[in-house]
Amino acid sequence: MSTDPLVVFTPSGKRGHFPVGTPILTAARQLGVDLDSVCGGRGICSKCQITPSYGEFPKHGVTVAETALSEWNAVEQRYDDKRGLKPGRRLGCQATVQGDVVIDVPPESQVHKQVVRKAATARAITMDPATRIYFVTVEEPDMHSPTGDLERLARALETQWDIAEISADLTLLTKLQPVLRKGKWEVTVALHTPRDAGPAQVIEIWPGLHEGGLYGLAIDLGSTTIAAHLTDLETGAVLASSGLMNPQIRFGEDLMSRVSYAMMNPGGDREMTSAVRDAINELTTAIAAEGDIDPALIVETVFVCNPVMHHLLLGIDPVELGQAPFALATSEAISVPAKALDLSAQNPRAQVYILPCIAGHVGADAAAVALSEEPGKSEDLVLMVDVGTNAEILLGNTSRVLACSSPTGPAFEGAQISSGQRAAPGAIERIEIDVATKEPRFRVIGSDLWSDEDGFAAATSVTGITGICGSGIIEAVAEMRMAGLLDESGLIGSAAQTGTDRCVPDGRTHSYVIHDARAEGGPRITVTQGDIRAIQLAKSALYAGARLLMDEMGVERVDRVVLAGAFGAHISPKHAMVLGMIPDAPLDKVSSAGNAAGTGARIALCNRAARREIEAVVQQITKVETAIEPKFQEHFVAANAIPHKTDPFPELAKIAPLPQVAFNTGTSEPGARGRRKRRRAG
Amino acid sequence: MSTDPLVVFTPSGKRGHFPVGTPILTAARQLGVDLDSVCGGRGICSKCQITPSYGEFPKHGVTVAETALSEWNAVEQRYDDKRGLKPGRRLGCQATVQGDVVIDVPPESQVHKQVVRKAATARAITMDPATRIYFVTVEEPDMHSPTGDLERLARALETQWDIAEISADLTLLTKLQPVLRKGKWEVTVALHTPRDAGPAQVIEIWPGLHEGGLYGLAIDLGSTTIAAHLTDLETGAVLASSGLMNPQIRFGEDLMSRVSYAMMNPGGDREMTSAVRDAINELTTAIAAEGDIDPALIVETVFVCNPVMHHLLLGIDPVELGQAPFALATSEAISVPAKALDLSAQNPRAQVYILPCIAGHVGADAAAVALSEEPGKSEDLVLMVDVGTNAEILLGNTSRVLACSSPTGPAFEGAQISSGQRAAPGAIERIEIDVATKEPRFRVIGSDLWSDEDGFAAATSVTGITGICGSGIIEAVAEMRMAGLLDESGLIGSAAQTGTDRCVPDGRTHSYVIHDARAEGGPRITVTQGDIRAIQLAKSALYAGARLLMDEMGVERVDRVVLAGAFGAHISPKHAMVLGMIPDAPLDKVSSAGNAAGTGARIALCNRAARREIEAVVQQITKVETAIEPKFQEHFVAANAIPHKTDPFPELAKIAPLPQVAFNTGTSEPGARGRRKRRRAG
Repeated sequence: MSTDPLVVFTPSGKRGHFPVGTPILTAARQLGVDLDSVCGGRGICSKCQITPSYGEFPKHGVTVAETALSEWNAVEQRYDDKRGLKPGRRLGCQATVQGDVVIDVPPESQVHKQVVRKAATARAITMDPATRIYFVTVEEPDMHSPTGDLERLARALETQWDIAEISADLTLLTKLQPVLRKGKWEVTVALHTPRDAGPAQVIEIWPGLHEGGLYGLAIDLGSTTIAAHLTDLETGAVLASSGLMNPQIRFGEDLMSRVSYAMMNPGGDREMTSAVRDAINELTTAIAAEGDIDPALIVETVFVCNPVMHHLLLGIDPVELGQAPFALATSEAISVPAKALDLSAQNPRAQVYILPCIAGHVGADAAAVALSEEPGKSEDLVLMVDVGTNAEILLGNTSRVLACSSPTGPAFEGAQISSGQRAAPGAIERIEIDVATKEPRFRVIGSDLWSDEDGFAAATSVTGITGICGSGIIEAVAEMRMAGLLDESGLIGSAAQTGTDRCVPDGRTHSYVIHDARAEGGPRITVTQGDIRAIQLAKSALYAGARLLMDEMGVERVDRVVLAGAFGAHISPKHAMVLGMIPDAPLDKVSSAGNAAGTGARIALCNRAARREIEAVVQQITKVETAIEPKFQEHFVAANAIPHKTDPFPELAKIAPLPQVAFNTGTSEPGARGRRKRRRAG
Repeated sequence: MSTDPLVVFTPSGKRGHFPVGTPILTAARQLGVDLDSVCGGRGICSKCQITPSYGEFPKHGVTVAETALSEWNAVEQRYDDKRGLKPGRRLGCQATVQGDVVIDVPPESQVHKQVVRKAATARAITMDPATRIYFVTVEEPDMHSPTGDLERLARALETQWDIAEISADLTLLTKLQPVLRKGKWEVTVALHTPRDAGPAQVIEIWPGLHEGGLYGLAIDLGSTTIAAHLTDLETGAVLASSGLMNPQIRFGEDLMSRVSYAMMNPGGDREMTSAVRDAINELTTAIAAEGDIDPALIVETVFVCNPVMHHLLLGIDPVELGQAPFALATSEAISVPAKALDLSAQNPRAQVYILPCIAGHVGADAAAVALSEEPGKSEDLVLMVDVGTNAEILLGNTSRVLACSSPTGPAFEGAQISSGQRAAPGAIERIEIDVATKEPRFRVIGSDLWSDEDGFAAATSVTGITGICGSGIIEAVAEMRMAGLLDESGLIGSAAQTGTDRCVPDGRTHSYVIHDARAEGGPRITVTQGDIRAIQLAKSALYAGARLLMDEMGVERVDRVVLAGAFGAHISPKHAMVLGMIPDAPLDKVSSAGNAAGTGARIALCNRAARREIEAVVQQITKVETAIEPKFQEHFVAANAIPHKTDPFPELAKIAPLPQVAFNTGTSEPGARGRRKRRRAG
């Protein structure tokens, strides 16, 4: 047995005997304890902070004397003076073993930190990004034994960090020599470990120790909305989340209209590619400003998107995705330099990773949902619906996972809705209609008050009440149905039929007035018959896709439903069920996963193993093509009713008794013309 | 022992038994016989032509019956009708084994063809380029089992060609889908095998069988001249050789003046980078036109160049190369996409390989000479001198190889010479001066006649006589010395001192008139005192470099001398020795290797193993830095005399007795002014 002192690390429990004088960092490395260090033990990066414990530790069989570690030294004092060390903390590279000791490694000193996610059931993210920083001392050139500066940098990384091989592109080479000299042969490099076991790529080099951090973007590139999360690649913290409308909308609102645009207009695909890349650059600049970081510190970007967005982002004409057999140009995960996508707002050597596509209509966004929500690890049968302009639908459990997509159109995102708008302050996001009085109350984004509560007017005086967002329109339609303003076929009743003046004539049909501020020069916010039709089309498509997967799985019911999507967190499960968006299920088994695709992107950004995992998982997923499946059409038609006609819904019946009303079509009251005139005048 | 028929291949001698009905191509592949095929045995590429032999073959122990192969078939007939097969030839993929047979594989059917080089001693080049073409049939997409087109192409290459993994950049992906469909799922791809064992890169894709060939450029990027060889990557044949002046000359004639330009002018390095890249693009377009090929079929370019040209080509500021310790940004061989160097005139996915540099002053051009001339494989001690604006000098044998470079300046390339010009039709390239009469005779590029032969005037009537090129000026100076027109110190004698009116006053010195066509409105071609001084500086630098290596090697003499360089083939060994450019050696041991650096580039272009070889060889070369070595200056000063002062030259003395003349300096005849006036009037 060794007579050298015993060092016990917590929380790992790893232990070993080390000679007196061994730095704690050295002991940790030899034991494989996860203790961070960027400077390699030179006492300048302070990443290796540890907390020694003193006294009796029966659990570890150790008594730790006050003299167990070397005395507080000048390096630690200098760091403490300059930046401040927490009480009880030491620098692992300075404190050396003098006797038996118990060393706690605090979470922030671990390389592979765990990132806590809000939802209790959510998987933790372990930090292991593809790009990391290393501080090295490079040998000076010697003309009698000439080697290139790059080769000496490579040798330094090999001897000091065990990194076997590096490569650097020409843009890095152009700055290598001045940076090495400015740093007096001490530099920090950011190294990207590529997907295919090639040499590590030098992404950036800074003179001396780089303390400005390293960042990544997780981007959910939707047909309607582009949402980005600026993420700290050391801690996994999200510094800022930001989004903007996909400017491709001007070429077509849904995927197929964009494919058509590319088919009908020579160079149309390139126009759309430029538009989306410009938007991503704009978003990158904005989110970096919001997060108060230099955008050149963004070194990794992960994208999730549907196949058409995928191809247009890559600069590939999506024409083949518009016709059977819907062949993708490439389906596997993609690693490319950001420069290849003209993403010039980030570091010039930043890397891009795009999750694999599952099929011609089931994209990297569906893969990201699978990565985040892990249907293949669920014991019960779970239906996951990522609601967007195109819905990604997954159904599965540990034995099998099926996937499809369904073209819901942009209605769920507030587009093609008369008073629709994107989720922003001023948008109605929640709505209730009193069954007796047929009067609405609502809440707008930016305030927690309902419209019938005291102070609502004051609380919304800045934002105003500007329109209805996606979750608001879903609630509005469902509430109208529950209040008897809407019949099973989706027809809005007249004032006479419904008993409320809020049902006003609108052309040959009726609209329901939620809010009328015209007297004050504000908008009149209504739900029109056209809005109802748009929502019916969207929800029927969604439901038909889910049913098709259930058919394929051979089941009539699912155990639980997860609603995801950029606004998935905001959809009320009850209203989604009343609408018939989703199959009948116990209400407490319908949950929101938030932006699962975006979360999947974040996971892939922070953890390299997750990339390999999802690349393997998508190979196992059974793809179901909705576009050419006759049963999809059948389900689609049957699902038009609200909630839907064919299937029983015992669970829904328990929570929301729906009135049996039926209105006649073809109303042609006067006023339609009059209204049109008013509109012109307005 | 097998009862299957025996198949013997010549010239390899490989043999084996194969079942009746086995295609010859299949038998060849199984035996590892080098038989080409692009279409993989589909009978469409005709690369697998073979010649069966019939009759008795005692050497192989075989009797070949007329029925040894299957009968001439419809595929062969169709090819013969369309393109013509040589008599006796069969297609190896169509002819099948029916009995014992001897099959000859003609050279043009071998994949690894040998390229014959002119010089008898020269190593042969075995064709094994980094980029090759493959014909494949790709599975059509199936929406029920969705995979990307790229993934199906990869699968086809794996099953049909055993290629484990491929990668394609985004520009290839943009054309992948239309090309696959245009070729009806039959395509030819050009695959580049990267240096570092990564996946093969798809460089190009064509619908159907591509029959347009595949080409590469070997470029010797000199300070003064850029020389390119357009090479067929299947046969190794040089289709065209072309050159142009390096446009960087406007920023400085020699390397150090270009480094100074970069140091003194912010962005100056980028100006020079753009200039040289533009010139290479221009040269690429011109050479493709000359070779009558589509420049998009140029898929590989190999560069050799000195370190300053190397850095400026790569876009790296060469400032560090202008001061001790002359640190290269990178010294190892470089593989980059041509696009990264803005080389837009070739295929957009073409690849560039740059040979490794040996030291801060000894570049990839010296490495290329070592690859071509192999000093490390020489039994006797060989001195290799690559003459250019910067001379690369190698000294060695099987035990050790030394290298240095020496700044000779552009005089040897005809620059800084009053009547100097680049080697082009009309330039004087050979010259003789009669010792008795002091009258010159000469030859110009474009004619085999000497100026005193019948028909010379007619033969040169188109080109004219325009100036003196590098080899011409070397001969002129040496001949002037041998004719006693020039003394040991390099001073030109007056008419009175030399006894010829061709020595005319020129300012405070004299010039020797070689050719005077002023009467016909043509030029007067002279060698001025300034020209002599420029040549003295150049040859002293060259000699001092060689001497320094000899010192380092501890030798007083070398066994043989090889003169190389873009115009190395044109330098007369005798004149070089008279001039004192090179150390004394037996005249029959002084040879010309032609453009050895350019040849090294061609070897690396045609053979991948040669790249690995030279990368290893440069590691073994001892680098000698001339710039900071005091003895270099000493040798340089001592070498100013013609031939030179310090060393004995017994070999030279045997062939060229030099007259002992000495002229006085400071002549100040009238006429200098007059001449100046004439010039103005002209």
